[in-house]
Amino acid sequence: MDDPAFEAALRAIAADRARGAAELGRAALSLLADAVQTLPAQNRSELRQRLQERANRVAGCRPSMAPVSNLVGQWLRGPDAPAGRDDEDVPTLRRRYRVWARELIERSELAGELAAANAAEYIGPGRTLLTHSRSATVLSVFRRLAGRGTSALVSESRPLNEGLVLARELAALGISVCLITDAQLGLAVGEADAVLIGADSLLPDGGVLNKCGTYPLALAANDHRVPFIVCCERFKRRPPQMGPPELEVMDPGELGYALPDGVTARNRYFDITPARLVTAWVDELGVHETYEPG
Amino acid sequence: MDDPAFEAALRAIAADRARGAAELGRAALSLLADAVQTLPAQNRSELRQRLQERANRVAGCRPSMAPVSNLVGQWLRGPDAPAGRDDEDVPTLRRRYRVWARELIERSELAGELAAANAAEYIGPGRTLLTHSRSATVLSVFRRLAGRGTSALVSESRPLNEGLVLARELAALGISVCLITDAQLGLAVGEADAVLIGADSLLPDGGVLNKCGTYPLALAANDHRVPFIVCCERFKRRPPQMGPPELEVMDPGELGYALPDGVTARNRYFDITPARLVTAWVDELGVHETYEPG
Repeated sequence: MDDPAFEAALRAIAADRARGAAELGRAALSLLADAVQTLPAQNRSELRQRLQERANRVAGCRPSMAPVSNLVGQWLRGPDAPAGRDDEDVPTLRRRYRVWARELIERSELAGELAAANAAEYIGPGRTLLTHSRSATVLSVFRRLAGRGTSALVSESRPLNEGLVLARELAALGISVCLITDAQLGLAVGEADAVLIGADSLLPDGGVLNKCGTYPLALAANDHRVPFIVCCERFKRRPPQMGPPELEVMDPGELGYALPDGVTARNRYFDITPARLVTAWVDELGVHETYEPG
Repeated sequence: MDDPAFEAALRAIAADRARGAAELGRAALSLLADAVQTLPAQNRSELRQRLQERANRVAGCRPSMAPVSNLVGQWLRGPDAPAGRDDEDVPTLRRRYRVWARELIERSELAGELAAANAAEYIGPGRTLLTHSRSATVLSVFRRLAGRGTSALVSESRPLNEGLVLARELAALGISVCLITDAQLGLAVGEADAVLIGADSLLPDGGVLNKCGTYPLALAANDHRVPFIVCCERFKRRPPQMGPPELEVMDPGELGYALPDGVTARNRYFDITPARLVTAWVDELGVHETYEPG
């Protein structure tokens, strides 16, 4: 992988509006695993240094998405050589980094699947679930509940309508799906047995960074006493030392129409739902009705 | 006005997505004022009976919008002949209904303007106001505050984006306008000094029937302790004897894209914001921090 290919792949991750945070975290690892194979380096220390430079850029390319920096950071801290071995040659080290990336990708996928399994068991069959945006983990929960009387209310999730993609995926699973505008989320809560969402990041206090619109949806769920369930693996946890998260702002052109003269537009992708509005956090370890950091 | 022309005009009011409830109430009166000129009738009682039939259809054509039935109902109860006169001929009665319609239209316009003036005085200069959907009364409030340091945050208001129309109107007044998606309303509350909305109907308990998305916006305003102000004239008050309002459902085709196989869509236009979330109701009589029916 040469420099231009690396830069193009990095830009693609930064611009990706279709995949969720965990998927992009894994894509970031794949990119670095590829890059490490061809980075010019005469010795181990040079390889590590060049890798560090690239990894820092990848880790920072989606500041609202904790899994990207978490997975890249964990990858960079490993791979540990077997005890007592620090004399491997550069090709061996390249290979070890590649294997380590694959292992972390698998751990991340497995964590997401376990979280989904825990959520499906917690929710049980025969429920109408309301969701917002598209989360691969939420899709996995629905996959486990398909054919068991589960139905879905799905918001379109402007500006790019990834809810429409999710609606198609759910219908393909045989789930009864009703699509609504984001503005109807408050109305739809009254028809739902629970709200189920994924997350782009979990904050150290249990707050949920997710597609904008999640926060007012959580308020409506609380106002209706409908459970508000967040399902995501622990790689989504933002480390306290990182400080407050940035809420990514995207191109207003995504709104899809020309703005009148004198009108500006804002396209902020994420909002933060305070922990007090969350009924349960479900992850690979189980269902947590209070949030414990770490 | 012949029957086909009446039917076409009635359908246009029923299908109108651009004008607000008060404007459509006035359009309903104009339609009936025209119709009464040409309705075939041999005598006063026949004219009144035919008029009643038409008025009932017009009054029911927008069930979520109280001003339509209120204005038509009030028109139908009048016009009273001068005391002691019940012997006017049919042409005179036609003329009297037309004049009465004009008077009610003017009363309705004046009430809206007075409500807007009261709201502008209550809000004062130098504020950032967040609004959702397009209300002629809210536009009038902004007109009174233009050039006085007022700025606006405006949601697009899917599915037909009447917020974009309002944004253009506000920019033409020289007001600084930022357009957002409906899903960003919860985020934007944190930047607003107040939320200002109109209403399609006020319920007898002070609940507000307005474009869907208003209810979660009100929840977010309350959560941020940002005032939530409803500005509309008293013709918007739904009489208690009418029972619970219907929340109009429109064509899902308005969402603007083809639905995937197996996916249904819902396009409900209105939600109800409970009175407990309203900071102030502003009407032609003043600013009310508690709601008194009647």
